[in-house]
Amino acid sequence: MSLLVAGWVAIDEIETPFERREGSLGGSATCAALAASLFTEVRLLAAVGEDFPEEMRKALERPGIDLAGLEVVPGGETSRWGGRYHYDMNSRDTLYTVLGVNANWAPKLPAGWDDSSALFAAAGDPVLQHRLMAMVPGARARMVDTIKFFIDGARDELLKAIRAADFVSINESEARELAGTPSIAKAGRALLEGGTKAVIIKLGEYGAAYISGEDYFVAPGYPLEEVVDPTGAGDAFAGGFLGYLDSVATVNQREIRRAIIYGSTVASFCVEGFGPSRLLTLERDEVEQRYRQFRELTHFEVDD
Amino acid sequence: MSLLVAGWVAIDEIETPFERREGSLGGSATCAALAASLFTEVRLLAAVGEDFPEEMRKALERPGIDLAGLEVVPGGETSRWGGRYHYDMNSRDTLYTVLGVNANWAPKLPAGWDDSSALFAAAGDPVLQHRLMAMVPGARARMVDTIKFFIDGARDELLKAIRAADFVSINESEARELAGTPSIAKAGRALLEGGTKAVIIKLGEYGAAYISGEDYFVAPGYPLEEVVDPTGAGDAFAGGFLGYLDSVATVNQREIRRAIIYGSTVASFCVEGFGPSRLLTLERDEVEQRYRQFRELTHFEVDD
Repeated sequence: MSLLVAGWVAIDEIETPFERREGSLGGSATCAALAASLFTEVRLLAAVGEDFPEEMRKALERPGIDLAGLEVVPGGETSRWGGRYHYDMNSRDTLYTVLGVNANWAPKLPAGWDDSSALFAAAGDPVLQHRLMAMVPGARARMVDTIKFFIDGARDELLKAIRAADFVSINESEARELAGTPSIAKAGRALLEGGTKAVIIKLGEYGAAYISGEDYFVAPGYPLEEVVDPTGAGDAFAGGFLGYLDSVATVNQREIRRAIIYGSTVASFCVEGFGPSRLLTLERDEVEQRYRQFRELTHFEVDD
Repeated sequence: MSLLVAGWVAIDEIETPFERREGSLGGSATCAALAASLFTEVRLLAAVGEDFPEEMRKALERPGIDLAGLEVVPGGETSRWGGRYHYDMNSRDTLYTVLGVNANWAPKLPAGWDDSSALFAAAGDPVLQHRLMAMVPGARARMVDTIKFFIDGARDELLKAIRAADFVSINESEARELAGTPSIAKAGRALLEGGTKAVIIKLGEYGAAYISGEDYFVAPGYPLEEVVDPTGAGDAFAGGFLGYLDSVATVNQREIRRAIIYGSTVASFCVEGFGPSRLLTLERDEVEQRYRQFRELTHFEVDD
């Protein structure tokens, strides 16, 4: 089994109330691929420029991540993003976005990758997301993520991509905006009525809600005393979710719920370090231990 | 077993984005008493003025609520509160507060009530909350609730009351303010280190977190498509929590977790109606059914 992760590999500049770092490895595909590689074989599909630092490439050279799809565009510039977090770490301002090679990225699938069994199409042009889904016709778990920029600017194309996917992941505020309602439950239902199969609404430190025609599941946020940097948490969630799901024999409600907890677990580790740094040292047994802690956090008894 | 509920019985004026109502029954003690009466015998300790409408008193005359402690102050004016909710129902402005008889309330316990087995001291003067705890020396579950006004204006007295109680319930933003940290987990730990036995942080639509020296438990919010009026949800939570806890043979971690889900369940019903109106029609079997739904919402499997 293998998960195709398509998105950005970028160079970030991040400012939190406590620290500031320039020139750190970032990008949606980076975080998702590192998270997913804890569970399954990952195929990374992304573009960088000739300026992409060798040490960043080395950080991605890991067992479980196939970099055959990491295209180096001749003369191109690697994408860059700068962001600043507010005091409570729940909101941030984007300081700048340099599209670079992603301005006109037309991904080419390496030979043999069309048999990928799962797909994460990170936030990006929904027309491209739709094309990615067509490239892996046999995938049994395909998720698209999106951001406000595409809800505002490419709503129809986005809804088309969302309807084609098995799962859409979206931030709470974006779900409210897309559905035009302040209620999460109503936003989820509105998206289902619009033809979406399943919606994962990311609630930041409050966890995540999964809403499909068959199920409604709520996962809490893992209670962390220190959040170092929330960047990439959503992509780490997606990577953990799809990575786990790609590793199981049958994709069903039981495994989807477990995948959400695995995604939440990996995301909770991600925010403990700057950028994806914590993901670079994370071991599977740490993940299993925190997965069980999620159970301890939420379990209560019901009379028969 | 009986739960002493001490706080306000008031007349409210509430404005939501969808509706406005004047002269409706309100007050912290009202919501908590109605919620708790689903589980245990309630003793209501509150003061109203001679202007308190007969039909409001009738609404409180229910099996399971003893009104012997509802004092009518001669010549006094019933407390009044007016509030307006914002579009997302998560934040509100207080339009006015008329203290009335609660400006100088010195509660007198009716004969025999000093054997109450549990206490809810709703948000109010912390010196009074401390005195209430002394009035029921045998109570095995005593909870104080508070609001920003007392954190700002009576911090030392509040911390003294909180340390004396078995449980403190507090809103998320207030917990952050009281502990001086943006992290919920850290705020909880700071309160424990200050001598608090157990903290319940109310997260609004995201549920509640329970933090003690022995346990950390997270309950999600029940996913409601329509919230009619959030007024009283926190007090309904407290009433459901303490009402259930007062009804069990032994207060332990297992029962405390169950009590939090019962509190969350009753609070989720409360917000489905204006003021406490939904609590007036709520039946125990509806509560049991939704309690089980909470389990369905949060359950996931863990490998042995």
